[in-house]
Amino acid sequence: MEVAVGLIGLGNVGSGTLDILLENAQSIREKLGFPLRVAAVCSRSVGTRPLPEFAEPVLRTADWREVVSHPEIDIVVEAVGGTGTARQIIEEALRKHKSVVTANKELMAQRGAELWNLAHRNGVNLAMEASVAGGIPIHTVLREGIAGDRVVELYGILNGTSNFILTEIEKSQANFQSVLAEAQQLGYAEADPSADVDGLDAAAKLAIISALAFGERLTPADIYTEGIRRIMPIDFEYAHQLKHTIRLLCIARQSENGLLLSVRPSLIPQQTILAQVKGAYNAIWIRGSYGEDTFYYGRGAGPKPTGVAVVSDLMKVAREIRFGSPERVSPFAHERLGEYRPQEISTQSAPYYLRFRVEDKAGIIATLAAILAKHKIGIDAVLQLPREDWRDLPFVITTEPAREKAIRDALIEIRELEFLVEPPLAMPMVRGF
Amino acid sequence: MEVAVGLIGLGNVGSGTLDILLENAQSIREKLGFPLRVAAVCSRSVGTRPLPEFAEPVLRTADWREVVSHPEIDIVVEAVGGTGTARQIIEEALRKHKSVVTANKELMAQRGAELWNLAHRNGVNLAMEASVAGGIPIHTVLREGIAGDRVVELYGILNGTSNFILTEIEKSQANFQSVLAEAQQLGYAEADPSADVDGLDAAAKLAIISALAFGERLTPADIYTEGIRRIMPIDFEYAHQLKHTIRLLCIARQSENGLLLSVRPSLIPQQTILAQVKGAYNAIWIRGSYGEDTFYYGRGAGPKPTGVAVVSDLMKVAREIRFGSPERVSPFAHERLGEYRPQEISTQSAPYYLRFRVEDKAGIIATLAAILAKHKIGIDAVLQLPREDWRDLPFVITTEPAREKAIRDALIEIRELEFLVEPPLAMPMVRGF
Repeated sequence: MEVAVGLIGLGNVGSGTLDILLENAQSIREKLGFPLRVAAVCSRSVGTRPLPEFAEPVLRTADWREVVSHPEIDIVVEAVGGTGTARQIIEEALRKHKSVVTANKELMAQRGAELWNLAHRNGVNLAMEASVAGGIPIHTVLREGIAGDRVVELYGILNGTSNFILTEIEKSQANFQSVLAEAQQLGYAEADPSADVDGLDAAAKLAIISALAFGERLTPADIYTEGIRRIMPIDFEYAHQLKHTIRLLCIARQSENGLLLSVRPSLIPQQTILAQVKGAYNAIWIRGSYGEDTFYYGRGAGPKPTGVAVVSDLMKVAREIRFGSPERVSPFAHERLGEYRPQEISTQSAPYYLRFRVEDKAGIIATLAAILAKHKIGIDAVLQLPREDWRDLPFVITTEPAREKAIRDALIEIRELEFLVEPPLAMPMVRGF
Repeated sequence: MEVAVGLIGLGNVGSGTLDILLENAQSIREKLGFPLRVAAVCSRSVGTRPLPEFAEPVLRTADWREVVSHPEIDIVVEAVGGTGTARQIIEEALRKHKSVVTANKELMAQRGAELWNLAHRNGVNLAMEASVAGGIPIHTVLREGIAGDRVVELYGILNGTSNFILTEIEKSQANFQSVLAEAQQLGYAEADPSADVDGLDAAAKLAIISALAFGERLTPADIYTEGIRRIMPIDFEYAHQLKHTIRLLCIARQSENGLLLSVRPSLIPQQTILAQVKGAYNAIWIRGSYGEDTFYYGRGAGPKPTGVAVVSDLMKVAREIRFGSPERVSPFAHERLGEYRPQEISTQSAPYYLRFRVEDKAGIIATLAAILAKHKIGIDAVLQLPREDWRDLPFVITTEPAREKAIRDALIEIRELEFLVEPPLAMPMVRGF
């Protein structure tokens, strides 16, 4: 007996999935003991663009309703993306008792729990390995691989585009705009890059894996999010002087009162494995109460790596269907348990990197130091790189560990100072992994 | 309804497992939706050593037969180790239709496939995440997380003791014997260290994960294995000069004619994530046809990290029992498929690091170069560190990529040269990850 798959959407993820299902069919069949058959392919371009050769007859349609109501199809792959049609497709498929495999991080981060409930009520499964960190099977790791542990904290690099841009700035000392243009040319960044460079994509992924790791209902709205647009080449120079580098770091960390969740550019020590993550890669560092630290790394996106995640999910769901055992354990928390209630990020404590651009004038350091002192923030170091042109030269103050609340209050006052050329840039210096 | 567990063996792994099952019981229950109950504990020391407080009555016995024949017990944890009693326990439990979770790499590497068959015939499961790489859920990753991919090559650091010893030699320049003594004092190495430092433990683990990754029936006998006893501090000095470091590297790689499998000290480039793996950690680098490269890192051993693997397996098997769906897909290949037939390591090609200790004499390099040339091995560099005491100073020749067969033949001739103080040391320089 075979299990039949209907594939909706032939963009990056959909076409990568289709390629693997066809090219790797024999290996999949050997591993499963039965074949996964592509029974339908749906795309708006289905009449106009060439499709691969299929060994067996395949329904080709531009109407997704034909796929979700197809009597032979057991599993629907939603590779459309977005929260509109994709949601309709998933809901309709689940109601028709078809399991769904999706790569849709946006929708899963926002409505994953309720869609999973719908799947559960209809006795089918909803799988989403591909929604986070492309080629890294982090969903499987958290749900099964280390299920026996209690996650205490989790650090991730979850947006490949931002990581590519940051590590290019680091390597070439080019500025953000020109590296972004390069990333767009290479296809690593979209025409509208805001989901990537403003941290929204990373926050959706962090919401999905944190919900799973901590068993708490979480959405992107619970996550303090800041992007990388303001990072300059000189920030890497200062960071290196401090034996650190800069990454768009996702953090979910248990504190005394609940969970601290953030996505923001951060300084991390150069001598860590996380600092070795370069280019369009993703990585996740997990600390468990019992298993201590584990680390996972791989391609963050791309048709084939994400396709592997979709196909691996298809194999898992196909086994369940074949052996009559749909998933019964939710990948989502369905209530707020309290212990892991998201906390205001302003309660967190860390050393901070503060970068200032000012007009040259006497007494600047004294003025800034006085404001920091007033907010009980200790100064660790003042750094200024030697340069021929001193005009507008940014300089940096690093602080002793301080509450983010104090830092923010101080920065509000500092922002009013007339010698500032632009608002100060503040980044936490994150250690402990 | 609960699922009942009988735990046999209270050494490192058994006691770590028991601690987690008791301390983390509530979280496990929340994740599963039902409790995992410890129904029996068996150890030779059960009468004499203190056991934790149990909330419910627990059978305490020194006789494993009482556990495997206990009517209430659903899953038996074999944490005894070795291939004697452990094998009896597993076989007997499976025959009595109890699923088994084991951490026994030696037994699984040698007899995993037949034991899995026995489980299959009896409609139960045999799970072994804990048998490889302690805290890293590599079994789950390969079986489910990236099941849709085709693994092309795999590089691992799979013995924490050896990695601790090598990175200590690297850090402190102390010699093998004194670092081994330190590792023994810290409990990282056993009184008889040969399973660790001679590569046998790593080979058993490589056999298990390669069988899973490539779908080929493999045992440690298929793996070329060499230990780390001959590595000297000066080898790290030379390696660093070459911008490399030295690790006990496990390799499984698809070549034209089959699989190349080896465990041996190797030079790897310093600028790789694998080179950042220090101390008693394990790591695995996988390259897939579709998912490209992924990397996994964590504690290689220890009661708690290995306990997490056992408990996570227990949770998986408990779900299967609860929902009537025992695992039906073998983690082992049961025949030789041909495509992945193990190859003689002598067919492999790589650049080599050759280290010589000689009596000072004229014409040594010329003699060695002539022998290498005769075997068509190109010399890449000759290295000799400056030292005050030149007597016995080891020096190094690195080669162009050459067949291992040619290197071996050349070394057989070189070994006969009278000016050699000890046989040459040859290590491949491995790149590509």
